[in-house]
This record gives sequence, structure tokens and C-alpha cells, in this order.
Amino acid sequence: MNFPSTLPALADALRNGGLLITDYLSHLESNFNSREPDVLSFIPEEGRFDRLRRDAQALLTRYPDPNTRPPLFGVPVGVKDIFHVSGFVTRAGSKLPPDLFQGSEAESVTALKDAGALVMGKTVTTEFAYFGPGPTRNPHNPEHTPGGSSSGSAAAVGAGLCPLTLGTQTIGSIVRPASFCGVVGYKPSFDRISKTGVMPLAPSLDHVGVFTADARGAALAARVLCRDWRLTDSPRKPVLAVPDGPYLANASDEAMKHFDDTRRRLAAAGYMILSVNAMPDFEEIRARHNLITAAEAARVHEKMYARFRELYHPKTVDLIERGQKISGEALAQALKGRKKHRMELTHLMNVHGIDLWISPSAPGPAPQGLESTGDPIMNLPWTHSGLPSMNEPSGRAANGLPLGLQLTARWQADELMLAWAADIEAVVSRS
Amino acid sequence: MNFPSTLPALADALRNGGLLITDYLSHLESNFNSREPDVLSFIPEEGRFDRLRRDAQALLTRYPDPNTRPPLFGVPVGVKDIFHVSGFVTRAGSKLPPDLFQGSEAESVTALKDAGALVMGKTVTTEFAYFGPGPTRNPHNPEHTPGGSSSGSAAAVGAGLCPLTLGTQTIGSIVRPASFCGVVGYKPSFDRISKTGVMPLAPSLDHVGVFTADARGAALAARVLCRDWRLTDSPRKPVLAVPDGPYLANASDEAMKHFDDTRRRLAAAGYMILSVNAMPDFEEIRARHNLITAAEAARVHEKMYARFRELYHPKTVDLIERGQKISGEALAQALKGRKKHRMELTHLMNVHGIDLWISPSAPGPAPQGLESTGDPIMNLPWTHSGLPSMNEPSGRAANGLPLGLQLTARWQADELMLAWAADIEAVVSRS
Repeated sequence: MNFPSTLPALADALRNGGLLITDYLSHLESNFNSREPDVLSFIPEEGRFDRLRRDAQALLTRYPDPNTRPPLFGVPVGVKDIFHVSGFVTRAGSKLPPDLFQGSEAESVTALKDAGALVMGKTVTTEFAYFGPGPTRNPHNPEHTPGGSSSGSAAAVGAGLCPLTLGTQTIGSIVRPASFCGVVGYKPSFDRISKTGVMPLAPSLDHVGVFTADARGAALAARVLCRDWRLTDSPRKPVLAVPDGPYLANASDEAMKHFDDTRRRLAAAGYMILSVNAMPDFEEIRARHNLITAAEAARVHEKMYARFRELYHPKTVDLIERGQKISGEALAQALKGRKKHRMELTHLMNVHGIDLWISPSAPGPAPQGLESTGDPIMNLPWTHSGLPSMNEPSGRAANGLPLGLQLTARWQADELMLAWAADIEAVVSRS
Repeated sequence: MNFPSTLPALADALRNGGLLITDYLSHLESNFNSREPDVLSFIPEEGRFDRLRRDAQALLTRYPDPNTRPPLFGVPVGVKDIFHVSGFVTRAGSKLPPDLFQGSEAESVTALKDAGALVMGKTVTTEFAYFGPGPTRNPHNPEHTPGGSSSGSAAAVGAGLCPLTLGTQTIGSIVRPASFCGVVGYKPSFDRISKTGVMPLAPSLDHVGVFTADARGAALAARVLCRDWRLTDSPRKPVLAVPDGPYLANASDEAMKHFDDTRRRLAAAGYMILSVNAMPDFEEIRARHNLITAAEAARVHEKMYARFRELYHPKTVDLIERGQKISGEALAQALKGRKKHRMELTHLMNVHGIDLWISPSAPGPAPQGLESTGDPIMNLPWTHSGLPSMNEPSGRAANGLPLGLQLTARWQADELMLAWAADIEAVVSRS
């Protein structure tokens, strides 16, 4: 039996009954049993597939008629372990007593369940979604990091274990692991998806987003998750722009060579691609983003850290201790700069008529080793702006690991970015 | 002696000393004495020009060196009489005791003064910037209204009495009188110019803006007045769009015929002009805008109205009494709709790559009579969105009175709109 490899095809098949949930779960289980031990993307759960079969049965009982089934009927979803999910413990990759941080189910999880999704389980996160890594391995090479902090969510989709996962991005925790694992990772406009019920790292920068195999899958999930989704069909071809300046100097030679090749393929496919000087103040943007992350993380963790300092990962300790030294005034000032940055990018888009910025999703392919989840620097300025951005897999590095193209659209133009991404995917994706 | 007819040329001449302020004030005075009695655009002031000569002398003493003179050195500015100005009484076109509503000088006025402008005086406003008219007449025909509520500010520039005036727009109080008087009227993005020190009508909808003879003049003033102004030079040609749908049905046949002719001139000049279905919910937008105006005006005037009801103009009475019946909940709901409306216009701009909406600035030329200031309906949806918009004079109606083209740009794209408007002006302006 052939199982659909993309989320839209899978959701269609499950809804119309062309694929029975029970058959699909059997396939999923055998796949999981063979691949998961190498990838370690999920938090272990006893009797996972028996529970999923019971959940599926309840769903079938609730929606006997294919015509009334919701859009994600029977679709399994993996949830990063900083989201609260009814019946699951939130551990956030931490050694702290988990009863410190339980709460009501995340609105995003409830929205997916209401749309018919089945929670396949919790996925591995770095400690509190910062840099302290979990056990997850890159599905394309177990000696390499999957990236982080949404390590398990990216790897699960990359390994074909799950068609849809939830993640978060505060610096580069969706787009970077998506790039490393060769999947689509979508970070919406700031606050376009509810963060209620998700453990914060830095509330002014945290974004909830998703991982899927393709752009149309991300759009299907976005339609369910985003506030005020507007249907968009076949928009005109977007004008693309490369942000020339100090930002791009952070990509490796290999990543830039690949990026230039991707550019040429897009130009050959008829895309207009501008080169625009952007972010001359990149070092300030970086400093400001890191200041906000540290200051807000220190405030979020203040009480727990005072009691359980010794249980924190050294990287998180460093973050919180840096943050403790930052004054409320310095934080307020930095938060203003974030809005100014968004306006400056928007101004450039208006002046030049730019629809999408394109850039490398990471400085290179996933680094070797599991101690570091890699560098989020290529994602940082886009996260800082709050503009929607995403990864499109665009080929492979010399070592066989995936590389990605990062797209960034206008404020709240999530619908358009995902529609455009589907066309761009057809040009740049290489298996 | 030739006196520059546009603000940028005037400001240059005054700064570099090519035109002496004293000579310019003499010219201004003789012009004022001959024209103002027909137009009645200013609040009368004893010894206006003697005061102006003293102010000018103080300015010359402060800036003896032309190289250090600020951008509006010696430029006279008329200020709508709802702005507080040090040394002037604010009367707001009202019969109420003026001591009820005095306050510190408006930040916009102080900004213009800091840039070297001289306050030429207060200009006539309708009562509290709503529909109760003042004495001002249209400079092109004294039997016709100049429009409102910024009646005096529009007429003063239209009559050549003053090169720059301040106004406000809550429904259509800048763009409509600018159209009626044949001048440029610029309403910025919501809150891009400070409203501190300006008497509110409906705080969620009030915008401060300016009148000038040309777009470059408005840009010069905007640079001084707007928060975070970004210099913009020679941007690419904008993509224009006509908002097809029920909105345009509010323009008269004559206004639409003229608008279509203006469109053809723009197309012939190489502009791409799309026709895009927009605002199918126009009637809801109108109802929502009128609801917010009434509800907020009732709250602003609550105490004064309770004491001085009999001193209000019947049109303001009607507004306030409608507003008193509107619940806080209904108001809150309407305010949400305003943001949704902006997002929907923005989404259409993103989908189609639109830089500027074009539309008629008014349903037709200035109506005959002084009892009505005309219909702001063509301006209402753009004001509702908070997007920047402006009037460009585009020719004359059969009765010889001016008609105008309304431009509306993206959120915070004020710099671009004004730069583009200067080019559009060269195509559409007809004396």
C-alpha cells in the first residue's frame, strides 16, 4: 500500500476514507519502530500506538460521515515538549520537578485537535527551548545535530515519523532545525498563532509554528492555527530580494555558493530577484535580540532559578545570569528597537516593491556532534522583526546533509508567503 | 518681485536669504488684505503682521547664519483652531466658554516652530471639527463651501494666503476640503504625527495633517512633523489600483468621468493601474466609522455637553446624542473592526502588489452654499483604515471648481506616498 508523503494528500485520504486510519496507524507504528531508535525525536511513551488507536476510534465515532470531517481528520501531530497537552506531562527538556510548570492545554494544540488531529506524542526540546540539547539526532546522519530548540519536531518530520509537528522559535528554533533536517519549517508573523499554554522563553520574541514535508502542508496547518486566516489562491509571482550587507557574511562559503545556485535557478524560472542593501546595523540587531532573550528569560525563570540553579544546563545558566544583569530600562529600550527594525525592513520592501526576502536558512548544513544545536544567526534578524519566515529545503551540502532557503514576507502576509513558497518549492527542492 | 509659489521654493529662498523675510511678510500682508475678506479663512487677530514682523526679527537674531537655519526658517503656518498654540486662545469654532478647553501647545505646532516656522494665526474650523460650519468661503467661488472641518486651513492655502497649514481628519476633514479648494491635503498614517495638544473629536480616528500647494511641500512639512521620517529618493514607479465595488458608487457621474480621465492620463504616462474588487463590506465600514465617531465624541464632550447643551450646533448635538446611546461594548467591537479593515486592504495590496489606491477625493466639486461642508464619504474608508492618504488636485469641474485625486498608501509608507505623489502631480495637475 502507498501512503501519501505530504500532509495535504494524507489529510485528504484520511478524510475521504481512501485511507483508513487504522491502516495508516499500523504503517506509522512500523515506521516508528524501525526509525525512531536512531532519531530519538519523541519523548518515550508506553503504549503510544494503542492509545492512538483508541483516540482514532473516538474520532471515527464522532465523525462517521466523511463529508462532515474536519480538515486534519486523523492526522497525527507531534508536539514540542514545552506545549501543555491534556494527559501529558510537560518537561521542557529540563531536570526540574515538572509539577512546577504544568498548565492548561495550549490553544494551538486544542485548535489542531478540534480540526481532527491526533496527538502522536511530545517531541524532544532543548532545555526550556534554549541551547541545552536533548538526545535527538539528525535523521540524515545520526552523528549530526538536528538543530534546536525544536529538535524532535524537526527530526520527526525529517525522518517521516510524523506528518506535522508543532515548534517554537525565539531566535532560530524552527527555521534552523527545519533546514538541518530537510523539511519545511514555518514561523508565522509574531503572535499570529496563540502562545497561550506554551512555556515562554522570551515572551516578546517567542513564536509558535509548524514543521511539515511541504509548503502546502504548512499552509493547511496554518489555516487551522492562525488568527484570521484569509484564503489566497494563485497570487501573482512575487518579487524576491537578497539582503546584501553584513548579515550575509555569517553564512559559510558553502552555504553562499549553494544560495547563489538557488538564486540562479529561481531567476531561470522567471523570478525577479533584486539585491538590496539591508541591515547595515546588523550587529546592533543581534545585540538587541540577545539582550531581550536574556533579560526576559531571567525574568521568566527568576523564582525557579533561585531554587533550582544546580539543575539548569550550563548554557541556560549563562543566559539567565546575563539576563539578571540587564535593567528594565535597557530591556524597554531594546523592545522599541525591535519595532523600528520591522519598520525599516518594511520600508525597504515598500521602496523596492519586495514581496519576499530570500537568504540561507543556516550558516551551513547541520554541524557534527550533538552538544551544539548549531548557530541561529541567519534566522535572528527575521525573528527580531516578527515578520513571517520559513525554510524551504533547497538541496544538499557536500556531506549529503540538507541545506535550506529562508523566505521572509511582509507583516501578516503569512497566507501569501505560504502560497508563494509552494511555487518556489517546485523550483528549488531537490531530493 | 517674484515670490515662490510652492513651499520648498519659498523655504529655500527664505533660508538662503535670496528672499528677505521682511519683504515676504509685506507681500503676504498685502495679499492677505486683498483676499482674506472674501475667504475668511483665519480667526481675526489685531496687529497680526506687526506680531509676525517681531517674530521674524527674533528668528533672524537667533539664526543670523543662513547655513545653520532650520528647514522651515521664516515659513508662515496657519493652525486650525483646535490646536493649542502659546499666546493664542483655542475656540474650536464653538460658542462655549473657551477657558474650558485650553492646554499646552500642540507638539506638532512646537515642532514646526522649532523648524523655524512662524505662526501666521489660527484658521477657521467647523465646531469641534465636526459638521457645524464656520464663515470660511471657497477661494475659487465664495458661494461654495471650502469643505470642512479644516475649512480655513484648506482655503488659506487655496487662496495663496499661506504656504502651509495644519488640519485634522476624523472622517474626511483634510482630503475633502483640499479637493474642494484645489490644494494638496495630506493625512498621515494614524498617529504618525502627534495629536498631543489638539482637541479630540474621536481619538481613535483623529489624524493631524497638513495643506500645501504641492506634494513636495507636504513632504517637507511631513519630514518635520512625522515620527521616524525616512528619507526616500526617487523610488520606482508605483503600481496603482482602483477599488472597484460599492464604495465608488458614492461618487457623482461627473466625478467618475473626471476620475476615469485622470486614470487614462496616468496610464498614458506609463503607470500600471489595476482594477481590484475591494470593500464589498463598504456599508459596514461606513456604519462602524460613524458609530466610533459618535460614541467617542459623546465621551469626549460628556461633561461640557451636560452643562452647555444649548450652545452646541444642531449637527454636533445630533452626533453627541447618537453617541450617548452607544454602549462601551459596541464601541469596543467597532474598534476591532477598524483593525480588520486595515488588514484586509493590506492583504489586497500584498496579493496584487499594489502600492497606491487611487480614487476620487470627493463625490464632486464643492457644493454650493455654506451651510454644509460637503460629504466625506469618499475619504471615510481610508481614514477608517488609518492608512496614509492625500489629495492631489487633478483639474476642474464644469462649474470651474477643483476636483481631486485621492491616493492611499500602505501603513507607514507616508514617505513613499509623498514621493510618488510628486510624480503623479506632474501628470494630473491642471491649473
